[in-house]
Amino acid sequence: MILPDIIVNLKLYREAIGQRAVQIARLAEEVGRETGVAFGIAPSLMDAWAVAREVDIPVFAQHVDPVEPGARTGHVSPRLLREYGLKGSLINHSERRMRLADVRAAVRMLRGEGLASIVCAGDPEESLAAAALKPTAVAFEPPELIGTGVSVSKARPEAVTRTVNAVRSKFEEVAVICGAGVSTGEDVRRAFELGVDAVLLASAVARAPRPREKLLELARGAMAPED
Amino acid sequence: MILPDIIVNLKLYREAIGQRAVQIARLAEEVGRETGVAFGIAPSLMDAWAVAREVDIPVFAQHVDPVEPGARTGHVSPRLLREYGLKGSLINHSERRMRLADVRAAVRMLRGEGLASIVCAGDPEESLAAAALKPTAVAFEPPELIGTGVSVSKARPEAVTRTVNAVRSKFEEVAVICGAGVSTGEDVRRAFELGVDAVLLASAVARAPRPREKLLELARGAMAPED
Amino acid sequence: MILPDIIVNLKLYREAIGQRAVQIARLAEEVGRETGVAFGIAPSLMDAWAVAREVDIPVFAQHVDPVEPGARTGHVSPRLLREYGLKGSLINHSERRMRLADVRAAVRMLRGEGLASIVCAGDPEESLAAAALKPTAVAFEPPELIGTGVSVSKARPEAVTRTVNAVRSKFEEVAVICGAGVSTGEDVRRAFELGVDAVLLASAVARAPRPREKLLELARGAMAPED
Amino acid sequence: MILPDIIVNLKLYREAIGQRAVQIARLAEEVGRETGVAFGIAPSLMDAWAVAREVDIPVFAQHVDPVEPGARTGHVSPRLLREYGLKGSLINHSERRMRLADVRAAVRMLRGEGLASIVCAGDPEESLAAAALKPTAVAFEPPELIGTGVSVSKARPEAVTRTVNAVRSKFEEVAVICGAGVSTGEDVRRAFELGVDAVLLASAVARAPRPREKLLELARGAMAPED
Repeated sequence: MILPDIIVNLKLYREAIGQRAVQIARLAEEVGRETGVAFGIAPSLMDAWAVAREVDIPVFAQHVDPVEPGARTGHVSPRLLREYGLKGSLINHSERRMRLADVRAAVRMLRGEGLASIVCAGDPEESLAAAALKPTAVAFEPPELIGTGVSVSKARPEAVTRTVNAVRSKFEEVAVICGAGVSTGEDVRRAFELGVDAVLLASAVARAPRPREKLLELARGAMAPED
Repeated sequence: MILPDIIVNLKLYREAIGQRAVQIARLAEEVGRETGVAFGIAPSLMDAWAVAREVDIPVFAQHVDPVEPGARTGHVSPRLLREYGLKGSLINHSERRMRLADVRAAVRMLRGEGLASIVCAGDPEESLAAAALKPTAVAFEPPELIGTGVSVSKARPEAVTRTVNAVRSKFEEVAVICGAGVSTGEDVRRAFELGVDAVLLASAVARAPRPREKLLELARGAMAPED
Repeated sequence: MILPDIIVNLKLYREAIGQRAVQIARLAEEVGRETGVAFGIAPSLMDAWAVAREVDIPVFAQHVDPVEPGARTGHVSPRLLREYGLKGSLINHSERRMRLADVRAAVRMLRGEGLASIVCAGDPEESLAAAALKPTAVAFEPPELIGTGVSVSKARPEAVTRTVNAVRSKFEEVAVICGAGVSTGEDVRRAFELGVDAVLLASAVARAPRPREKLLELARGAMAPED
Repeated sequence: MILPDIIVNLKLYREAIGQRAVQIARLAEEVGRETGVAFGIAPSLMDAWAVAREVDIPVFAQHVDPVEPGARTGHVSPRLLREYGLKGSLINHSERRMRLADVRAAVRMLRGEGLASIVCAGDPEESLAAAALKPTAVAFEPPELIGTGVSVSKARPEAVTRTVNAVRSKFEEVAVICGAGVSTGEDVRRAFELGVDAVLLASAVARAPRPREKLLELARGAMAPED
């Protein structure tokens, strides 16, 4: 799978669950087609299947447990994501921190299924540790900026650069994503200037009064100036 | 909501996820209609919405987190279950044990939504503790019998009776369910003879080569002799 | 063991660890001897043994894990507390919430050793659930008042009364403690007037500039008017 | 601090708690003095202070929580270890797995206190991830060998070598320890031949009928042939 440019985490926002999750995913698909910017989407666990049936852009689980299918109640198994048309999963989001051994196991299980693993981390050091597990990507998100509207790419550019450089120099096959507070096209543009492979964002789209316009703005931020 | 007689937990069995979850739910609905026995179903989290769209029997989540909607990644909120057509949730299943304070919060949040809460517990004392939180029902399931095919109603009848009596005498408005190893019509009949309000089972149906026949057999076990 | 009247949780306050924990425990013993009020003390895990060697008042662990002795790293086993001269343990403190099944197991293991179990709970319903497990005592502590200096006995008297009545009517052998914000002799007096068997407090003593005076003041609050 | 050659984790073995922990620590100190091999010891949390008062060899906590001192019940803070004379802590032992973010925070807090952090990990990849956090050392211990008496250095030499090489090439300032099943002098010798900086073991000493002899045997395994 080629990593999308912009991944939208719908979280558990009322404005973005159920049928609204499907609608936002469709808009992301449309805007992606129009602009050539690749979108991915991470709907809530209960919405993931319905969204994956309706769109062609990559759909990610918000979380997986490192468990095999079988006698498991209330879990999500990496082995089964493909049956729902999903392309991978977020892991260790700051709102759903996991044990190191479980992050390790989840990454391995996703890889075994040919699925993408995006491991979230709260600082450059934790990002480098996550990268050592050889996931598809690490997503550096300072927890203190999540949901603030103050973008990591503006507020902590040196930490983004440090993460990009550290991961590139030690584990070059692992992509680097940044997130937290990313809410405008300008935030996205700055993030790409810092060298990331993709951005991760949530409320800017999930709670946008006009999601289509917001998606367009963000897509333009992801396009090179000459585009 | 009136509690079903037989609740089928599909867990994360490969034989019972995705489209197969929908099919088993439909069979349970059919058999229920034919026999007058009320079935409920608890599909995996990713299947719950699709199942609830397709059947009229009560659908339960396998787990909820005691969280409000909003900035939450990888969680399931009691406040949102109704939007998916669900009627309630299992809580504290032995494969997904929760903190006491979280069980308490989840029961309260489900109650606030008019949804059913079924709190699982591993022995009579824990069942009584769960009942003190005033959920819709407690489900007594000795963990050591789960998945064995050796029914709690045959192997531990005195513990079932003790649970029924303790809960009835102290918290009479709370229904009592038993589960673990329940696999035949006879197991179901014995459970009802011990005074439970419903039975909870999983692999007997979820992994049945012929689920329809198994559902019919179980339903007959739930019918009074004169029926 | 007879439950003390006043239990002092030293938490992990810098002012109350190591040699200071031993000193505070000795003062509690002295003041107890002078006033006839029975004190108990819960030092941090690393201090528990040293404190128990130095004083005769009951010493409690702040937490136990429901594990047997053996191949366990970083845990505290109920089976071993007696070897250190401890008399029991707090369980499920709001700063160390436990799974319902683990609370259940810890209470049973402590009882099996003839040790006291004091299960903390955040509201009257959770307290009643805890009481159903037949610990020595439940300690009702509204988390929002802990550490505030605003006493549960003044701010939430009706909730204390409700807890006392609910536990007494259903599980009369279980003692009821209240805590959270208890910081003056008057707070203690009010708590006993509400019918509790003991009070649990922390920062008022652990961080007191003059712990001896504070312990004396609290002891006087625990004495009947005619004393 | 210079890392010891052999670190003995006493776990929660009945044979190695309380006064026996102190005795084993004294024997390790003696044998270390006689042989020139540096021993370290990780007693159970309740024994750590008493052991540290009695011996001069480095004493480690078996676990720390990434919390500051203060209103914390039932936790161990990295900030306070020095007050007990401890030299550092094990982190993320396979019997006490931690969240990645907590491992990160604990390593940073220990470093801030000038204390040693030894992060356990279950395979070479997880070990490399742990090393990325720049602890004093990573301890590679395949969980399936722990407590078996089958030594990692004999059963999985290639995995030990892979861990040593991976950590050395990417994070050369981080020491590499191996453990799991290490029980004889020969196991120790093989481990050092594979290039580790130290070995971690538990039951071989903690449950030894004659701990002094066992410590001597292990020490000889750690000595170079010409010694």
